[in-house]
Amino acid sequence: MEADRQRVSTDRSGFVPDSLPDGVVFARTPDDVVTTLRMASEHRIPVVPRGAGTGLAAASSSRAGELVLDVSGMNRILRIDPQEQLAVVEPGVLNADLNAAAAEYGLFYAPDPASTAICSIGGNIATNAGGMRCAKYGVTRESVLALRVILADGRELRTGRETIKGVSGYDLNALMIGSEGTLGVVVEATLRLRPMPVHTATVAAFFPDVTTAARAASAVVAARIQPSVMELMDGPTLEAVDMAMGTGYRSKGGAFLLVQTDGFGAFLEQEVVMDVLEPLGSCEKAVDDEHAAALLTARREAIPSLEKLGRVSIGDIGVPRGRLAEVVSGLEEISARTGVRIFTIAHASDGNLHPMIVLDPEDSVTSGPAKAALGEMFHLAHKLGGTLTGEHGIGLLKRDWLEEEVGKVSLEVMNTIRTALDPLGILNPGKGL
Amino acid sequence: MEADRQRVSTDRSGFVPDSLPDGVVFARTPDDVVTTLRMASEHRIPVVPRGAGTGLAAASSSRAGELVLDVSGMNRILRIDPQEQLAVVEPGVLNADLNAAAAEYGLFYAPDPASTAICSIGGNIATNAGGMRCAKYGVTRESVLALRVILADGRELRTGRETIKGVSGYDLNALMIGSEGTLGVVVEATLRLRPMPVHTATVAAFFPDVTTAARAASAVVAARIQPSVMELMDGPTLEAVDMAMGTGYRSKGGAFLLVQTDGFGAFLEQEVVMDVLEPLGSCEKAVDDEHAAALLTARREAIPSLEKLGRVSIGDIGVPRGRLAEVVSGLEEISARTGVRIFTIAHASDGNLHPMIVLDPEDSVTSGPAKAALGEMFHLAHKLGGTLTGEHGIGLLKRDWLEEEVGKVSLEVMNTIRTALDPLGILNPGKGL
Repeated sequence: MEADRQRVSTDRSGFVPDSLPDGVVFARTPDDVVTTLRMASEHRIPVVPRGAGTGLAAASSSRAGELVLDVSGMNRILRIDPQEQLAVVEPGVLNADLNAAAAEYGLFYAPDPASTAICSIGGNIATNAGGMRCAKYGVTRESVLALRVILADGRELRTGRETIKGVSGYDLNALMIGSEGTLGVVVEATLRLRPMPVHTATVAAFFPDVTTAARAASAVVAARIQPSVMELMDGPTLEAVDMAMGTGYRSKGGAFLLVQTDGFGAFLEQEVVMDVLEPLGSCEKAVDDEHAAALLTARREAIPSLEKLGRVSIGDIGVPRGRLAEVVSGLEEISARTGVRIFTIAHASDGNLHPMIVLDPEDSVTSGPAKAALGEMFHLAHKLGGTLTGEHGIGLLKRDWLEEEVGKVSLEVMNTIRTALDPLGILNPGKGL
Repeated sequence: MEADRQRVSTDRSGFVPDSLPDGVVFARTPDDVVTTLRMASEHRIPVVPRGAGTGLAAASSSRAGELVLDVSGMNRILRIDPQEQLAVVEPGVLNADLNAAAAEYGLFYAPDPASTAICSIGGNIATNAGGMRCAKYGVTRESVLALRVILADGRELRTGRETIKGVSGYDLNALMIGSEGTLGVVVEATLRLRPMPVHTATVAAFFPDVTTAARAASAVVAARIQPSVMELMDGPTLEAVDMAMGTGYRSKGGAFLLVQTDGFGAFLEQEVVMDVLEPLGSCEKAVDDEHAAALLTARREAIPSLEKLGRVSIGDIGVPRGRLAEVVSGLEEISARTGVRIFTIAHASDGNLHPMIVLDPEDSVTSGPAKAALGEMFHLAHKLGGTLTGEHGIGLLKRDWLEEEVGKVSLEVMNTIRTALDPLGILNPGKGL
């Protein structure tokens, strides 16, 4: 149906393909995936694997001549083992649904993209997704123990194992994670769960401007605190949240830092956070869980709030943690010079920023000033020793800058591996590398 | 010189090659490595990369027809960045030397194999080495940010990046880590350091037998404590340590568990550890740092102590953490039935056991009862959902059982990647896969 083809042709990157895919398979079982890939191999049909379609780099966008393989209907939680603290799930399970199921056992799944309510585990694996809790608990790679993957030719590959450690052979598990649907299609994942922390302590801090907030975040890292969450939002983002949510954060300062510590020492660690932040801004401890949850909600609503202002293209650069102030100053300068509206939010404890470009409806993210601003952002990050993408992936949108970051030999080796595993080139061609 | 060739022909696995390598290159610079590999490619000479030679799976053993590429002389710490908490080192730097240098900045490098004083970072990377602190801080993979690697044909590959997060292209960093010198030769590594914990709390617990100790360790995991160290030693190992060190641990119980918690909440977490362990054995808190250090030394001296009893072959199986009691019972049964002496020590918080086979001088680890016992250990671990090797690697010694664990397709894919990156097959042939 055309409506299906329309729906599966895009993701949440803002990229609009020039045509619709030829068809879409809604897989329900691993066998459906095997059958589809065998058939596609036989007829040399390019296949675009797809989960919940919340990608931010157009890795699951599709066009004429391509077949979409949608695994969002494979969405069962197959097993939760509270003793071993792991879950076995199908790829279409939503991140938030897994967390809700784990919570019944006092456990949680650490990677928590802002899109937790709508993004799927398969997509999280395809992009090696991160989120707010990753500085302390690691990204998706650190939470995936094992995978069942269908290769381009229909063979079933098992990677990893259920034990915490293991070095039998190459780390194919890590190779698959973040490969954006170019090396295989995940049909089952064994995930590490973690015990919910016994305590969580929350600090909200407001600063006169975003540069000061960034300096404060670097100071927390330099003080050797390990926050479980440290989120930064600039003044324009606070305004957008206030407008959408009816809150009044912007009146409290020109930039906001939310710092959570957790575990047995959460409140002791919080005292050190306060000592570091108080000379730089105005800090308050969350008075109760409800207050803390409201602060987290403000951060989670940042993207939806910005989406009310226009079409949003979400940047994803990363820099060494001591260079946050330099990069936010640089972003302000790019915005002023190009006239492109850039709003900055960041996972400040791992140096991962999401500069949000808000576009007018007629503007494109793949050409004109917005694309130029994306390129300038990358060059800024690169100059500061950073990366093009911390957790969203390359997809279609960032291919132009990949070689500049990773180098010629690295790109050659990646292509060598891709060709070795998918010699016919049917898996997500044109994406990732 | 024959003495050099003799020295570089073996590691610490107990495996004795049937001949000496043809020669050995002592590399001093990355260019030496490039030149060696280009020359080897041109003449199709198999190259055995080698660090400090402390491997436990014979991955760096060598024989006639092979050239050893020894990088132990590339042993400079190039940079420590206390702000970004990272170090840049050459591969020959010893693990303990890096930790000593990092300590001057209040930092530490988390992976800490028992051989820390004599093993090199390059070897740690080649095997994805672990150690005592890995359950909390992750294995080598979680501490390596970036690598410079020379490929078989002499090209220089850079993997990873200096930022905490990054998903630009495939995770070649993780692919190299644990590849046992079969995909390239590491000439420089950028490593993540961590702040030394503000507090460390230590508990020593003695139990009537090893099964009870294993049950106690599983109970700590089930209580959702995250020890930084949780080490188990059985009674025969305690006897060997007492004999070598003049201590009296065996008189206190038939098995020993050392549990450390660290961080802001270390002492609060310790109380929960005590609550879990006290019903099962006799526990004491370390009274001061010196006491705690003595307990850690007992564990670090276990292997040298056993080496005084005969030639030691160190097993390295891993099991799900709830199955520790089953696996130690199984090991006792294997020892009783085969007559092979097996001593058990374990990193109990991640389910990684080191069953130590002590051989008489005339016995071999690659044939006869010792090899049979190794095979039975693996089958035991496999039956319990576990792995052949938690942190030592496959090398030469465990190839026979690799396919049974990872499966046919996985082995095919690993070989596909190996052939793609080293089409002439010159890097460590016969090892790893």
